[in-house]
Amino acid sequence: MSIQAINVRNQFRGKVKEIIRGDVLSEIDVETPWGIVTSVITTRSVNDLNLRPGSEVVALVKATEVSLAKI
Amino acid sequence: MSIQAINVRNQFRGKVKEIIRGDVLSEIDVETPWGIVTSVITTRSVNDLNLRPGSEVVALVKATEVSLAKI
Amino acid sequence: MSIQAINVRNQFRGKVKEIIRGDVLSEIDVETPWGIVTSVITTRSVNDLNLRPGSEVVALVKATEVSLAKI
Amino acid sequence: MSIQAINVRNQFRGKVKEIIRGDVLSEIDVETPWGIVTSVITTRSVNDLNLRPGSEVVALVKATEVSLAKI
Amino acid sequence: MSIQAINVRNQFRGKVKEIIRGDVLSEIDVETPWGIVTSVITTRSVNDLNLRPGSEVVALVKATEVSLAKI
Amino acid sequence: MSIQAINVRNQFRGKVKEIIRGDVLSEIDVETPWGIVTSVITTRSVNDLNLRPGSEVVALVKATEVSLAKI
Repeated sequence: MSIQAINVRNQFRGKVKEIIRGDVLSEIDVETPWGIVTSVITTRSVNDLNLRPGSEVVALVKATEVSLAKI
Repeated sequence: MSIQAINVRNQFRGKVKEIIRGDVLSEIDVETPWGIVTSVITTRSVNDLNLRPGSEVVALVKATEVSLAKI
Repeated sequence: MSIQAINVRNQFRGKVKEIIRGDVLSEIDVETPWGIVTSVITTRSVNDLNLRPGSEVVALVKATEVSLAKI
Repeated sequence: MSIQAINVRNQFRGKVKEIIRGDVLSEIDVETPWGIVTSVITTRSVNDLNLRPGSEVVALVKATEVSLAKI
Repeated sequence: MSIQAINVRNQFRGKVKEIIRGDVLSEIDVETPWGIVTSVITTRSVNDLNLRPGSEVVALVKATEVSLAKI
Repeated sequence: MSIQAINVRNQFRGKVKEIIRGDVLSEIDVETPWGIVTSVITTRSVNDLNLRPGSEVVALVKATEVSLAKI
């Protein structure tokens, strides 16, 4: 199955910088040209996707998950 | 109550570019160095925060809400 | 950019059955062999993806978003 | 308190197949007619609900948490 | 199907105070002894659950959805 | 950057009662007038915010993350 397009509006392309492996979930820092985006996904997915430092990824965030603060 | 700091790891600072007002929820495009970040929040919050094009905001995303795709 | 794989553990393949279009968000019923899966995404994404009844899609759910109830 | 009904549109009934216990969160594979549905909940909830392989559960997913990809 | 127990750690019991009906999603204010809790659910669910001002409900929030700010 | 206001409709003010530290994520019980509110955030954020039992915090929940059950 190849995905043509995904509805997720927020997409940040970058490279995996660091992986903190946990027993069930892992934290992944993705380096993008404008800063780090951090994701927490299952450790099983880290293995299935074979993610390592340097892997090219896109971080995806659904618009309904984005909060706004006024500064 | 003033907030000193928030746990949310992903913070995208920018300016409101466009607001699509809906009856209950509104869609807000924030112009940031990462490109446009889109947020959906309640229209009541848009009013309470008095958001308009040009308002300075920070878009907040919890790390557990970020998915990763391999490219 | 073509996506090779995505970390999202829960993937339900099916066909769009019905779209309830709202001003900002739309509700989409996806018919899978085992029942309907309902998704709410932005109406802009419905347009961008050119979704219509019959479109083949995969519904994606991050494992951290799944609650469990005992019955 | 007994719950009569819940708003959550997506309900996947099945049996716990496997539990990966972590220090804070655990990953639970539920065998359903849709295939395996994976949930991540707190390990305290796993204990409180006394979940084990074979427990009958329903996996619940709010419609706003479901993304769609076109294939 | 009757639900015995749900993993969701945060449960706020109260009465529906107000419903703002939208085309696809509705906003519901639940009055609890300690203040209002606001929920956004599909308008179809509002109908299916037959929610009206005065309905007794419990608002449910998964622990992974709760952010913390220091004040 | 100081935050003036945040869109998040549900704000539960309280004091940290207990922290269960995990390798990647930690579970934090916050004592509020509503009772205990439980949050799961990254252990890195627990460190960055220097959270300990007694810290004053506000637990934040986006309205779209709140489900409703009828009782």
